[in-house]
Amino acid sequence: MKALLLVAHGSRRAQSNQEVSELAKALANSCRDNYFLVRAAFLELAEPSITDSINSCCEQGATEIVILPYFLNRGRHVSDDVPAIVNKAKSLHPSVTITTLSHIGASEAMLGLLSETANKA
Amino acid sequence: MKALLLVAHGSRRAQSNQEVSELAKALANSCRDNYFLVRAAFLELAEPSITDSINSCCEQGATEIVILPYFLNRGRHVSDDVPAIVNKAKSLHPSVTITTLSHIGASEAMLGLLSETANKA
Repeated sequence: MKALLLVAHGSRRAQSNQEVSELAKALANSCRDNYFLVRAAFLELAEPSITDSINSCCEQGATEIVILPYFLNRGRHVSDDVPAIVNKAKSLHPSVTITTLSHIGASEAMLGLLSETANKA
Repeated sequence: MKALLLVAHGSRRAQSNQEVSELAKALANSCRDNYFLVRAAFLELAEPSITDSINSCCEQGATEIVILPYFLNRGRHVSDDVPAIVNKAKSLHPSVTITTLSHIGASEAMLGLLSETANKA
């Protein structure tokens, strides 16, 4: 029972958070073969928090949670803040396997996405 | 003579800015058929600024500049701050065509990138 959390920074603009929530909904569809549950979660400024989302996944029966950090750069949030929250959650849910993927900006496919976008312009 | 500016927020962490600069270098290679010049530029906290980069492209003979906002969400930076700077640059360089693409988070291919990453985990 594998759950996916798309973790974003969170914004004061509701529209920005809505973009992330909609992306998570689309991901739920495109990842349904591998994940029974896909949710957006926010580091700050928006709800649900990462902690609340992890708790919710566990309550819904997740035995494995994959955290996908929706950040472009390896700044403090990626290197310190998200791991600190995830580590606390791990200690609260020792029977659940929680793994954190590299932030999306580190993906090799990001260069392809940027190239394609620029070359079309 | 077309130039590409990969515009990022900028970070207090030198490593984050370095990631963007390296991405711009890789883009220079993958976009060399369409752009004679590819540069990173930063909204704040890092150099070069968007204004300086646009000026530099113009000095180097760009007749067209494409701005690619390396942002995930349509927050204030994407909707207000970057356009304000670009509009000022347009008035300073009326003979240069400066166009701003949608922020990278709005790309349809972003969902594919996230799905692929999650499904591999």
